[in-house]
Amino acid sequence: MAAAGGIVTTRLGLVGAAGAVGQELLGILTERRFPITELRAFGSRGGGEITHGGASVPLRALGPGAFDGLDLVFFATPAAVAREWAPRAVAAGCTVIDNSSAFREEPDVPLVVPEVNAATLRRPEPPGLIANPNCSTILLVLALAPLHRAAGLSRVVVSTYQAASGAGHRAVQELRDGVRAALEGRAFTAAALPHSLAFNLFAAIGTIDDQGSTGEEAKILRESRRILDLPDLPIDATCVRVPVERCHSESVTVELARDLSVDAARAALAGAPGVIVVDGDGPQPVDRHGRDEVGVGRLRRSRVFAPGLAFWLVGDQLRKGAALNAVQIAENL
Amino acid sequence: MAAAGGIVTTRLGLVGAAGAVGQELLGILTERRFPITELRAFGSRGGGEITHGGASVPLRALGPGAFDGLDLVFFATPAAVAREWAPRAVAAGCTVIDNSSAFREEPDVPLVVPEVNAATLRRPEPPGLIANPNCSTILLVLALAPLHRAAGLSRVVVSTYQAASGAGHRAVQELRDGVRAALEGRAFTAAALPHSLAFNLFAAIGTIDDQGSTGEEAKILRESRRILDLPDLPIDATCVRVPVERCHSESVTVELARDLSVDAARAALAGAPGVIVVDGDGPQPVDRHGRDEVGVGRLRRSRVFAPGLAFWLVGDQLRKGAALNAVQIAENL
Repeated sequence: MAAAGGIVTTRLGLVGAAGAVGQELLGILTERRFPITELRAFGSRGGGEITHGGASVPLRALGPGAFDGLDLVFFATPAAVAREWAPRAVAAGCTVIDNSSAFREEPDVPLVVPEVNAATLRRPEPPGLIANPNCSTILLVLALAPLHRAAGLSRVVVSTYQAASGAGHRAVQELRDGVRAALEGRAFTAAALPHSLAFNLFAAIGTIDDQGSTGEEAKILRESRRILDLPDLPIDATCVRVPVERCHSESVTVELARDLSVDAARAALAGAPGVIVVDGDGPQPVDRHGRDEVGVGRLRRSRVFAPGLAFWLVGDQLRKGAALNAVQIAENL
Repeated sequence: MAAAGGIVTTRLGLVGAAGAVGQELLGILTERRFPITELRAFGSRGGGEITHGGASVPLRALGPGAFDGLDLVFFATPAAVAREWAPRAVAAGCTVIDNSSAFREEPDVPLVVPEVNAATLRRPEPPGLIANPNCSTILLVLALAPLHRAAGLSRVVVSTYQAASGAGHRAVQELRDGVRAALEGRAFTAAALPHSLAFNLFAAIGTIDDQGSTGEEAKILRESRRILDLPDLPIDATCVRVPVERCHSESVTVELARDLSVDAARAALAGAPGVIVVDGDGPQPVDRHGRDEVGVGRLRRSRVFAPGLAFWLVGDQLRKGAALNAVQIAENL
C-alpha cells in the first residue's frame, strides 16, 4: 500500500469477484470508502465483467504475472483455487486475505476475527497471508468471546440453521427454483446442493469424517478453538442447511467457569464490538440481512450446565461472516 | 366400545375434525382399519362437512348431549376447547384422548407415548381421559427412551427445526403464500404465525415465561420428564419454527450415565419400536413425510459429554407426533 498525501491507497486484486462473497466484498469496499487506486478482478475462467462504483471492470483469468504490482489481494474462491494461487500472490509481494478454508489451520497464518483476536495481526513481521474464518464460526465467536471474557467458557453445544447463500449464488437460485416447482406441483432435482432445500432441510454440510462430523462441524470446532485461543475447548456442533436465502442462525448452550447472571451476560454482549442484543423473540434472518452486527437474543440460564447460558444468534454470513470480516482485517493491517 | 361377534367396535367422536391433526386422524383410522360403527365429527362452529371412507360426514357444533352414546372421543382442538368440552365427554361415559396441552400436567391423566410408557394405561381403573403429548416431545422421547434403557440418560440439549404445519393448516398456507410473494417481489405480512416464515425462521413458539423459555420449550422439558419417568432430568430446549411444510427435526446432544459406543447406540435405536436409523446424511423432512417411524441419524460421540452422544432426528409431527400416537393409545386401551 502506498501513502499518497497522507492517505493510504491500495492497488487491489479480487479473485472470485463474480461470486456471492466477491460481490459482497465489492459492495462493502464501496460503503466503507476503502481507498482503491486500482481494482483488478479475476473470475473463474476469465471473460465477462463486473461493475464497481458505476464503472465496468473486466474479469480476468488467473495466469503468470496476474498479481504483479498489486498491494492487497482478496481470495473469495473455493479452497482449491486459493491453495494454488494465494502463495503466488504472496510471492509477488502482495498481502493476501483468503476467505477459503485452504490455510486456516496453518500455524503461521493468522486466523482472524478483528473484534476477537486482532492482536494476532500485530506480529513483529507483518503476515503475508491471513485467513478469514468460516462464516458460522465468525458469528459464533463474536458472541462467545465476551462471555468468555466475563466468566470463562468451558463447554459449547451449537446447532446451526445455515442459509442457502453459504453455498453460493447457484444454491440460492436452486432454492428459489425448487420452491417455485413445489408450489406448482412440479418435480425438482437438486444439483448445486446435495439435497433439495425446497420446504426441506438437511444436516449435511460437507462430507462426514471418521468421527461422524461433517466438514462444517469440524471447521467450527477447530477454528473456534484457534480464534478464542482455547485449544481444548469441548464443542459439539451440528450444522444444518435450511431453506433461508441469507443469514445464518445458531442455537447455542454454554457452560461457564464462573457464575454469570442473565443480566450480566446481556450487558457483556451488548457492550461487545460486532454484537447487538435483540430482546423479545430474538433476531431473525430477514431482519439481520445487510447488517454488520451479529444479533443475539433469547438469553436465559441453562438447565443443563450450572453455571451456564442458552442463547440464539443470527448474523449476515455473507457480510460479517465473510466479506465484512475480510475488509476489517485489511483495515487492521 | 361394544364387542360384536368377537370384533370390538367403536362409536367414535372427533372434535376438530377439519383441522390439520383431525384430518390426519381420519386418514390413519382408515389405514389401520380402526373398527368404527358410528363417526360423529365436530367442527369449530359446526356447518360444512368432511369426507371419511368415501362418505360425507356433517360437521356438528359442540352442545348439550353432543357426546351421548359415544365410546371414544378424540379432541384435536386448541387447549381452551378441550378444557371446556373434554370433561363433558368423560361425564357422558366416553373415553377421551386429547391432543391438546390442556390436561398434560394433571397427575391423574396419563401422558402416553405407547412405545415408551404404555404401562401407565394399565391401571386398576381404566382412565377416562388420556393426554397425547406435544409433537416435538413425542419424537424426542422415542429416541431418548432406548438410549436411556441402554446407558441411562443424565442430561439433554435439544434444538428443534419445527414445520409450519405444527401451527395448523393456515400456517402452511401462509408459508406458501409468503414464499410466493417473496418470489414475485411482493410484500407480505404474517397473520397465522407471529412472524413471516418466507425464507425466514424464528426462535419463538409460544410466549416467553419468566425463566426465558417459550411455551414449546417448557412443554418439552415437563412432558419428556413425565413420559420418561425422570422427573429431574436436566433438558435445555430451543424451539425454532422453520420454513418447512411438514415434519419436525431435532438436533440432540445427550450425556449418559454409562459408556455406550456409537455402534451399541445404533443397535439400541434400530431395535426400538417407532424408530428407524437413517445412515449417511441422516433423515430429512421430505423423506419422513407420511412415515410412522421417527428417523434417527448422524449418530456420533459427543465431545462435550463423556460419555455422551450427538444425533439428528426427523419425524412426521402430524402423524407420529399427533394423530398416529393418539390412535395407538386407543388401540392400547
